[in-house]
Amino acid sequence: MTDNSTAAGPIRLGMVGGGKDAFIGAVHRIAARIDGRYQLVAGALSSTPEKANDSGKALGLAEDRIYTSFAEMAKRERRLKGGIEAVAIVTPNHVHYAAAREFLRRGIHVICDKPLTSTLADAKKFAKAVEKSDALFFLTHNYTGYPMVRQAREMVAKGELGTIRVVQVEYPQDWLTVPQSNKQAAWRTDPARSGAGGSTGDIGTHAHNLACFVTGLRLESLAADLQAFVSGRKLDDNGHVMLRFEGGARGMLWCSQVAPGNENNLRLRVYGDKAGLEWRQEHPNHLHVSRFGAPPQVISRGGAGMYDSIAPTTRIPPGHPEGYLEGFANLYTEAAGAIRSHQSGQTNDTLVPGIEAGLAGMKFVDACVRSSARNAAWVTLD
Amino acid sequence: MTDNSTAAGPIRLGMVGGGKDAFIGAVHRIAARIDGRYQLVAGALSSTPEKANDSGKALGLAEDRIYTSFAEMAKRERRLKGGIEAVAIVTPNHVHYAAAREFLRRGIHVICDKPLTSTLADAKKFAKAVEKSDALFFLTHNYTGYPMVRQAREMVAKGELGTIRVVQVEYPQDWLTVPQSNKQAAWRTDPARSGAGGSTGDIGTHAHNLACFVTGLRLESLAADLQAFVSGRKLDDNGHVMLRFEGGARGMLWCSQVAPGNENNLRLRVYGDKAGLEWRQEHPNHLHVSRFGAPPQVISRGGAGMYDSIAPTTRIPPGHPEGYLEGFANLYTEAAGAIRSHQSGQTNDTLVPGIEAGLAGMKFVDACVRSSARNAAWVTLD
Amino acid sequence: MTDNSTAAGPIRLGMVGGGKDAFIGAVHRIAARIDGRYQLVAGALSSTPEKANDSGKALGLAEDRIYTSFAEMAKRERRLKGGIEAVAIVTPNHVHYAAAREFLRRGIHVICDKPLTSTLADAKKFAKAVEKSDALFFLTHNYTGYPMVRQAREMVAKGELGTIRVVQVEYPQDWLTVPQSNKQAAWRTDPARSGAGGSTGDIGTHAHNLACFVTGLRLESLAADLQAFVSGRKLDDNGHVMLRFEGGARGMLWCSQVAPGNENNLRLRVYGDKAGLEWRQEHPNHLHVSRFGAPPQVISRGGAGMYDSIAPTTRIPPGHPEGYLEGFANLYTEAAGAIRSHQSGQTNDTLVPGIEAGLAGMKFVDACVRSSARNAAWVTLD
Amino acid sequence: MTDNSTAAGPIRLGMVGGGKDAFIGAVHRIAARIDGRYQLVAGALSSTPEKANDSGKALGLAEDRIYTSFAEMAKRERRLKGGIEAVAIVTPNHVHYAAAREFLRRGIHVICDKPLTSTLADAKKFAKAVEKSDALFFLTHNYTGYPMVRQAREMVAKGELGTIRVVQVEYPQDWLTVPQSNKQAAWRTDPARSGAGGSTGDIGTHAHNLACFVTGLRLESLAADLQAFVSGRKLDDNGHVMLRFEGGARGMLWCSQVAPGNENNLRLRVYGDKAGLEWRQEHPNHLHVSRFGAPPQVISRGGAGMYDSIAPTTRIPPGHPEGYLEGFANLYTEAAGAIRSHQSGQTNDTLVPGIEAGLAGMKFVDACVRSSARNAAWVTLD
Repeated sequence: MTDNSTAAGPIRLGMVGGGKDAFIGAVHRIAARIDGRYQLVAGALSSTPEKANDSGKALGLAEDRIYTSFAEMAKRERRLKGGIEAVAIVTPNHVHYAAAREFLRRGIHVICDKPLTSTLADAKKFAKAVEKSDALFFLTHNYTGYPMVRQAREMVAKGELGTIRVVQVEYPQDWLTVPQSNKQAAWRTDPARSGAGGSTGDIGTHAHNLACFVTGLRLESLAADLQAFVSGRKLDDNGHVMLRFEGGARGMLWCSQVAPGNENNLRLRVYGDKAGLEWRQEHPNHLHVSRFGAPPQVISRGGAGMYDSIAPTTRIPPGHPEGYLEGFANLYTEAAGAIRSHQSGQTNDTLVPGIEAGLAGMKFVDACVRSSARNAAWVTLD
Repeated sequence: MTDNSTAAGPIRLGMVGGGKDAFIGAVHRIAARIDGRYQLVAGALSSTPEKANDSGKALGLAEDRIYTSFAEMAKRERRLKGGIEAVAIVTPNHVHYAAAREFLRRGIHVICDKPLTSTLADAKKFAKAVEKSDALFFLTHNYTGYPMVRQAREMVAKGELGTIRVVQVEYPQDWLTVPQSNKQAAWRTDPARSGAGGSTGDIGTHAHNLACFVTGLRLESLAADLQAFVSGRKLDDNGHVMLRFEGGARGMLWCSQVAPGNENNLRLRVYGDKAGLEWRQEHPNHLHVSRFGAPPQVISRGGAGMYDSIAPTTRIPPGHPEGYLEGFANLYTEAAGAIRSHQSGQTNDTLVPGIEAGLAGMKFVDACVRSSARNAAWVTLD
Repeated sequence: MTDNSTAAGPIRLGMVGGGKDAFIGAVHRIAARIDGRYQLVAGALSSTPEKANDSGKALGLAEDRIYTSFAEMAKRERRLKGGIEAVAIVTPNHVHYAAAREFLRRGIHVICDKPLTSTLADAKKFAKAVEKSDALFFLTHNYTGYPMVRQAREMVAKGELGTIRVVQVEYPQDWLTVPQSNKQAAWRTDPARSGAGGSTGDIGTHAHNLACFVTGLRLESLAADLQAFVSGRKLDDNGHVMLRFEGGARGMLWCSQVAPGNENNLRLRVYGDKAGLEWRQEHPNHLHVSRFGAPPQVISRGGAGMYDSIAPTTRIPPGHPEGYLEGFANLYTEAAGAIRSHQSGQTNDTLVPGIEAGLAGMKFVDACVRSSARNAAWVTLD
Repeated sequence: MTDNSTAAGPIRLGMVGGGKDAFIGAVHRIAARIDGRYQLVAGALSSTPEKANDSGKALGLAEDRIYTSFAEMAKRERRLKGGIEAVAIVTPNHVHYAAAREFLRRGIHVICDKPLTSTLADAKKFAKAVEKSDALFFLTHNYTGYPMVRQAREMVAKGELGTIRVVQVEYPQDWLTVPQSNKQAAWRTDPARSGAGGSTGDIGTHAHNLACFVTGLRLESLAADLQAFVSGRKLDDNGHVMLRFEGGARGMLWCSQVAPGNENNLRLRVYGDKAGLEWRQEHPNHLHVSRFGAPPQVISRGGAGMYDSIAPTTRIPPGHPEGYLEGFANLYTEAAGAIRSHQSGQTNDTLVPGIEAGLAGMKFVDACVRSSARNAAWVTLD
């Protein structure tokens, strides 16, 4: 992983959302810094002026580039010499589209947190906005940035697993086991801000995305049984989903926010007619691969068995663990590469999820909710 | 775990099935021997005379107690002074009922391998036969014999987990990933001998039984999506099942014989509103317990945190692993205790699964097959 | 693993020690029963008449074969038609030799618990007694009976690891972290009964034996720093030892009874110039093998990569764990095979440790104590 | 972990060493960037002009702040308005002191890679230079920056483990199993550049530092048996060391570069009379704690049981793993805080290792080499 900037220097970045006390904004900023490819120069970090101001100053922004309105930021930065080239959108879900639209129409590249939106309707409009824009769009389904996830994907693509038959993916957490009233919980359990999916939207989309990213398969239909176990909760906090992929592979997906002892226990297992693999987000530097009839192997990040093509996503030797932030940074760094290529008129293939992945995620949530309302009947995703 | 026999000495045991090359017969014999509570004295080990004879001699049986017909064995042993007190039935599924019936009607106690039968109809007749008999009936759902499974069950019963919300249970194997023609595979993939369920019957029943045993909950309904991935296979080799338990708990069950890298990877996770627990059959000496808001703990067999009531199911100190055979032996030893109590006119509460568990298992398989035939519609188990 | 007896039926076994409340006697009895190759018919289970009697009855021994003196038992059983063919000696260490001598001189085969004796002087006499006897002698360094230990040994022997360079072996426990006064602790911390080594004798000998068994290397010299951390304890409860093997391999050995969180955490790691391996007693069904420059592999008992030659030491398919008792039983069953071969005039190569291993263990303890007394100077083992 | 700069903005940083192809220089730069507290503005990245130039440009340095001599850089930057406030020294060991001296005498704060120097004589001069300087000195014994290492240290300090008895620490790698000729290997196996210790200097110092950091104990004496297994290698590639700490605790240290299957398998175990703990660098987000007589617990970074005082060293919620770079970044960020405090005349207690730790490490290496030359005799560290 190179840590140098291109001749043009770091990309000038703005941020929408991510003021004080926000979790994911800080993550995006670290991810942007790790490889030195961005410089944060403007922000609409909060719609509350005082908070926007305090947050911006704390981040070293010039006073005249601290905004309280993303629309104003988009307008002014577009005209400014040395204005932002890209913007990171890290607000609650229901604001993503409204904000992104302002930047996309002005040719400012957008890096947006997931899920794409709070409603499928918005997601479809979002897709059109991206299509019309000359700017690039990136969605931070960050788990796709882990090197061993890339390795898994490439092993499947090369046919190492044979024909895929079974996909088991799960994302259990426990933080909503009891009623919570903090800021993180508040918007995530509020349909107006989060959308129709609770655990399905917040973490089920990650699981769905990861399964599709690694297998390269499109989910055709699902049957979902969603629950809200905590009394008074308006959105699902646990979801059981059976999956049918194109080509005949079948799977199960479990997402939960009420499973005591689970922090962010995202786990993917894929089985083909030749081999199986397993990856866990909490121990992301190792990929377990079992060829039928041979002893199971452990491929470690940077170690023997890792494809050369994966090397650019790692920074340090095997045995020195990389984590969540480095995986997240890979998306930022690859987005930076794509932006610089785009600016110089070249195309740049990138594995960073884009609008299609975002739309697919919204269809997944929508399908889960529709299916569960019909007693877990099978529904298609289109 | 005491290794002494009672005043009356070891229980005289017969066996039906379990001739040379049979896997599970040898397991039953070891399980019966471990604590010294049984002596094998008669056998209808095969219906092929030569094989029956060779197998019987190899096991040290007297020639006149080597039978080729279980019916004949039941008849003669009943009349014999010093005839068998109990019989172990370890044939393929479709023979269980026919064999058991002969012994039950003669007051000979029956220890039977699972699943109960190959058809639900037979299972119902079986239940009536047990009900009419004065003899005791035990079903070797052997995973219930593991000390840490007992510990888990008791923790749930004491309310340590609070109200149960979510049950995740799975039993993946990989041995049928490719077509197999050995003896073990042949009858397990033949509907006539195995029944309507493939992986669901062979291992799904274990997963179902374990989930119910530990949680104490009855499964009310399920929605199952079964597959036969290997071309030409007549029975499911992979099954995805969503579960609804009495009282509102929900769950998922996965059984598979086509998941490369999995040997006998039975795993149970149970989550309540206070705590969660996890147990894996491949590492059976440890139970992972996580109280919400506290660091996860590991309770080891014989170690700190294990209830005193579990101690009789262990033989050696913590850190010296016990395994599959010892768990299996626990059922045999508890059955021996129950038989001796019964003989002396006392009642004996035992945790060894009996006819209800067997019938419940057959209803589970039947429901899986019915649901899958209706595109994974919800079906009830009664 | 065959569970049949030979034509001659099970071997008639006596036991010295192992009365009520003894831990290791019960283990030996289960190990002897698992494969059906022995029948316990006589015992000098305790020198206290009442205890000997109660223990013998509980085990179903005939009254006239319950003894209070091992010498008397040896004498009478030798003359008895159908007298014992072999004896298991499971007393505290200081009694091993005195008891074994009586049986060896009468041609009765001896299976003896480890360490061999309480003093090196006794061990040397013991070796002579074995040499003079026509009977066979087996020492239950039971960890050598684990299938994956056998696999490790054979991999080293075949050169899979290349030239051995480094051996790391450790056996930490925690049960003596605080002063203990129970029976198990009492004799193990008493020099008169246990010998000059505390943790070194009780568990260090196991670690030493395992390292030598797997690598096939003889330990030439060592430097030991022993401690008795618990106030008033007369024998070491923790030992640090540096090792030099013939041929240039070097190693470290740690044994401890005061390491909280360790039950029986015996672990061996061996590194050659081609590959390394790791095995842990608490998870004995898996052997971790890393060839330099290749992804690490896990070989499971019965699974892919296990040599065919190891198969006779396993009973059940991979994924169904075997444990301590099965490993112990392997030694008993192999000893039974050796005894029957011996009786029919054949020789029988066996991997069961014998008098050489016992003597080597005593030399190890003696060397540790001598070295530690000289401030951890290097001492040779001869 | 705050990601804002102080009012004064990021610290202006220079770097000595760390040109193209250098591993550790890139690590320092990422560590400096992660929390946004530094800005790299000058560098003497190589003594080869072309390489210095290319490396500096790639990092976005202004041409007039790319140097080929650290002495020149120190001189010029000292006089420059907006010159560097701190310098990172990431050269091979033998250059550390010569470089640091130039900056220290000019009041420029120094962040230096470990080990401190290549000789103990240099280390002592180094200590005097630090003492005379008004500038601060930080040594990147980076493993001390991991949150769970901090947690372990604080648990020991609070007495949670009781009196420390036993310390087991090891750092095995495998990259030098066979002769290597790459740049990383070349200087690390060259006495002139690396010093008298091979594996002892490169990784043994980390193990020694970690053990002392966590236990708070000073190592009094050691007995070392060092080996160079690979033919022709001039420095040890494997070391076995017995340890005696002040106050009576004893320990063992193993460092190896020839242990196939080990990447950076640094592991620390500490046992007191109340409890034990274990931490592994390859899975750094979890600390295993076992109180005697209670079930073992797992404390995760950010999870239940972690002290509030540790929180500033973490950035993201539990279950989202942090790794090596974040631990390294903690040292940089804490150094930044100390530098800003120092600049404003305040004192700032910091846990970042300094010159004492560096000197202690050199004494450790020196003692290992002296002891090994005397056949592993005990030597004191002073």
